[in-house]
Amino acid sequence: VSAEPGSLLAQRVALLGCGHIGGSLALALRGKVGEIVGHDADTAAATRALERGICDRFAATAAGAAAGADLVILAVPVRSIGPLAAEIAAALVESGGGGAVVTDVGSTKAGVVRAGETALGACFVGGHPIAGTERAGPDAADARLFAGRRVLLTPTPRTDPAALALVQQMWRATGANPISMDAAVHDRLMATISHLPHVVAYALAGAIGGAPELAGFTGGGYADTTRIASTPPRMWIDVFLENRAPLLDLIDHYANHLAALRRAIDAGDAAEIERILSTARAARAGVL
Amino acid sequence: VSAEPGSLLAQRVALLGCGHIGGSLALALRGKVGEIVGHDADTAAATRALERGICDRFAATAAGAAAGADLVILAVPVRSIGPLAAEIAAALVESGGGGAVVTDVGSTKAGVVRAGETALGACFVGGHPIAGTERAGPDAADARLFAGRRVLLTPTPRTDPAALALVQQMWRATGANPISMDAAVHDRLMATISHLPHVVAYALAGAIGGAPELAGFTGGGYADTTRIASTPPRMWIDVFLENRAPLLDLIDHYANHLAALRRAIDAGDAAEIERILSTARAARAGVL
Repeated sequence: VSAEPGSLLAQRVALLGCGHIGGSLALALRGKVGEIVGHDADTAAATRALERGICDRFAATAAGAAAGADLVILAVPVRSIGPLAAEIAAALVESGGGGAVVTDVGSTKAGVVRAGETALGACFVGGHPIAGTERAGPDAADARLFAGRRVLLTPTPRTDPAALALVQQMWRATGANPISMDAAVHDRLMATISHLPHVVAYALAGAIGGAPELAGFTGGGYADTTRIASTPPRMWIDVFLENRAPLLDLIDHYANHLAALRRAIDAGDAAEIERILSTARAARAGVL
Repeated sequence: VSAEPGSLLAQRVALLGCGHIGGSLALALRGKVGEIVGHDADTAAATRALERGICDRFAATAAGAAAGADLVILAVPVRSIGPLAAEIAAALVESGGGGAVVTDVGSTKAGVVRAGETALGACFVGGHPIAGTERAGPDAADARLFAGRRVLLTPTPRTDPAALALVQQMWRATGANPISMDAAVHDRLMATISHLPHVVAYALAGAIGGAPELAGFTGGGYADTTRIASTPPRMWIDVFLENRAPLLDLIDHYANHLAALRRAIDAGDAAEIERILSTARAARAGVL
């Protein structure tokens, strides 16, 4: 990729939130954008982000980082995105005449897009990369995190087509494949395929508990089934609350499946257990 | 390891069931035992086991494989172990004067040990290697499967100490670490750390379903959380039924944890969600 100014996706990028996802995106954009100005409310994370080359310099405030940027990436927990969009709105207008494009990387979209458009209007484009691990923070940032992964963008009739095009280019530059969909459809899809598994993994790890006598007796099953319960809670508190209605429906749907399997075991009904297990196994094969 | 007859763990081994676990054990014992005579009710599996060198020759019946063996390994689903022990009992007495040692690799132990001792007496030693994957059959056999893993042995006051010693030596020869414990304690431990995660994974994969529109949107969370639901059902039908009482208790305990997290999400109680998630995360770190 040429580093000539004219070929850059953006002359100045503001990265607000320098953790696992934001940091990975900044590393993936190296050489494809000009200066990256970072901000993070967590000073330790900010320091590590500078050390790792995630950003070129650091701003003391979100508004300071956003001022003069032509591309702003909001990479904070979902319930902080709306307030952050409101916080930077005035700085964007004052510094650049409103020419900046703003996008986010949050795991829920309907509420985020409503808040983003309320604060920023047509220049806000909701986005969600289907990537990530149970790790967190700038030390987990990885320039290859998005390669070959899908990114779900949720433009609305109000979205500026040029803003959408820039965000699509940005994701393609990381090796990802951006796809547009409706925000409510996105949230239902993610409640199913991502948020419910997180609820289940946390509930399972909690129910099994941490008794020392369990240590050393785990096969691969326990470790894999509960892996995502090692994600730091903060992000998921926001996701569960922000996507509450579809998620509660899906928890109930799952609890019904669990109860059906419990009944079959209790009844000693081998044929019904086999039906449930075979159906589940085939479903998994269909999804993966 | 020397191949001199005097240094072998056993001159003749009968492997009854040539799947993932039995086949892996046979491969791991190569050079440490003499002839391995196989039997499997599934003719296709038997053929593959011969092709892969899991056994040296094949017997048409379980009793035929066991006749003349000094070590017999029962590597079939848990509810088949008792009937299989009864089936070979006469052949062992007739051919060798009762000198053979018989062990199994089943995931539950209390019922298996009762049935094994009823059929075979003091020469039966219950065993369960804490190893395995979601794969099945002789093609999944792997000589290194047990290296560094624990094997739980469940001798009783009736067990012949020499039989226990041979089974311990056999497992050490595979690189595993044999540990003795009470069969009922074993079953409760496994219900917690292994059988419950399997119930949860199957219920989750079933609840999410296999709609084609889900394909391609999964992050690592879905794949890991449901991985063990890709295990062929047969083994788990037996485990769930054989370990029914402790497992039903644990499903109820888990359902209570799930309901508590659901209530906190429904109530919008961020502090309670954080408490549940943090407790779960810490528990997992304590176990692994």
